[in-house]
Amino acid sequence: MERVEIAIIGTGPAGVSAALTASNRNKRILLFGSREMSQKVAKAHEIRNYPGLPFVKGEDLAGAFREQLDRMGIAVTEKRIGAVYAMGDYFALQAGEEMIEAETVILATGVVQAKPLPGEEELLGRGVSYCATCDAPLYRGKTAAVIGYSSAEEKEAAFLNDVCAKVTYFPMYKGEPDLPEGVEVIRETVTGIAQADGHRVVKTEGGEYPADGVFILRDAVAPGQLVPGLETEGPHVKVNRSMETSLPGVFACGDIVGTPYQYVKAAGEGNVAAISAAAYIERKKKNGGQNNG
Amino acid sequence: MERVEIAIIGTGPAGVSAALTASNRNKRILLFGSREMSQKVAKAHEIRNYPGLPFVKGEDLAGAFREQLDRMGIAVTEKRIGAVYAMGDYFALQAGEEMIEAETVILATGVVQAKPLPGEEELLGRGVSYCATCDAPLYRGKTAAVIGYSSAEEKEAAFLNDVCAKVTYFPMYKGEPDLPEGVEVIRETVTGIAQADGHRVVKTEGGEYPADGVFILRDAVAPGQLVPGLETEGPHVKVNRSMETSLPGVFACGDIVGTPYQYVKAAGEGNVAAISAAAYIERKKKNGGQNNG
Repeated sequence: MERVEIAIIGTGPAGVSAALTASNRNKRILLFGSREMSQKVAKAHEIRNYPGLPFVKGEDLAGAFREQLDRMGIAVTEKRIGAVYAMGDYFALQAGEEMIEAETVILATGVVQAKPLPGEEELLGRGVSYCATCDAPLYRGKTAAVIGYSSAEEKEAAFLNDVCAKVTYFPMYKGEPDLPEGVEVIRETVTGIAQADGHRVVKTEGGEYPADGVFILRDAVAPGQLVPGLETEGPHVKVNRSMETSLPGVFACGDIVGTPYQYVKAAGEGNVAAISAAAYIERKKKNGGQNNG
Repeated sequence: MERVEIAIIGTGPAGVSAALTASNRNKRILLFGSREMSQKVAKAHEIRNYPGLPFVKGEDLAGAFREQLDRMGIAVTEKRIGAVYAMGDYFALQAGEEMIEAETVILATGVVQAKPLPGEEELLGRGVSYCATCDAPLYRGKTAAVIGYSSAEEKEAAFLNDVCAKVTYFPMYKGEPDLPEGVEVIRETVTGIAQADGHRVVKTEGGEYPADGVFILRDAVAPGQLVPGLETEGPHVKVNRSMETSLPGVFACGDIVGTPYQYVKAAGEGNVAAISAAAYIERKKKNGGQNNG
């Protein structure tokens, strides 16, 4: 795949806004996320303070975003980005086993509202993973537990079920999961993860469930995990008023950069991030590929 | 008039957004501007990157803003604020001869695009004024020249015509001014203002026109003139990411705080400014009327 100018991760108001403005500026972009837009938009009952759309229902705002992307010819690439690596003069985005190259990256992935589970951070990379597509091969023929925070994660569990000997699914949301036969569904609140005799244990209020690998699948991952080396403040990415992060070429916008968690604030920041990314690319071109910030 | 909690000056996307969010948070507000919304919105041909309103015409966006304000029960107070004075624990807003009190102020007046005229800054307050309503009494029975930058200024000229012996009007825009009989219209580009023998002189490419007072009337005034003591950077107000200015209790948003001059960026900042103003008021209440920033 040809290197794009701007990779935008996230399809909430920040990511959509960044995509519209970047595309308007004739930048070659990729927008990663979901055609359903972010859950936070699509599931909102009614938004009273989004200027220009009085008392808009979340599903209608999501629909308006989709229509606008379509009319601007912007596709949504429905791939999950597991990590972003700074490669010197470009960035490599890991989407499963695929690597996608981009000159700049705009992070609009939202904020991780949930606190990590007890044991989660300690065991990350040692039997605990955030990315089914990336790490499924490690558990071929073995057992996997999937802790899913939204119904969007069910297809990841289904994919693991093709690879692993057995998959146990812990839905952390309401509604009946739609999963292939053979996946065991445990409706108990997960309280933590532990290590025992070379395997992992998912602890719930009701019991303990052993597995070789534990997949914790949320809408958003912590920014410092997504982009190694990025300066953060608690769950947020540090940015200035131009939406520049501590890494030149990486911009961020929306809930990921801090409160207030508001739709139009996110949309405004997406606009600024896109313009800053476009300006960064122009500066780089002028300097013959070099960019000193 | 009872002291309001938040006075919002400006009815572009920033001011409208601030009003919607402040009202949503049950703050007592006054929104100063025009029912026509800002000229920059109303006159826009087509806006391609306002998320949720694909390819929206400026007049339609202005109409949507108006509808939303109406549905939220927010009135637009069509008064021009000439100055904002910090009075210790509140602010006094000068609207003609009226003084309006507010606990906090949100500046959303847009940016002054025009450079000052030669002589304008030197003679300001010495025969040159930005506010017809404020300074008309000084020129009762005398002659006044009005340099109007938009048709909205014609009613100011008409008002001066009731008070002054003679009014000369210099329209700095296209279209035929709608003015009372007796007002002389000079269609020549103004090049500067000078002082001579106790009166002022408006210089144009075509000649020189003497007057006792010269009124320069633009959509927006420079922020440092509007709010004495406010820290500025060129034509912009300095703010942090919470839209706080150098004066505690004064917030700013939209074009007035800097580039990019974009509709959704302004709307997003208006939202943040309103939330910061609401938080400031809550802190002040908790501290029994004192606020240390």
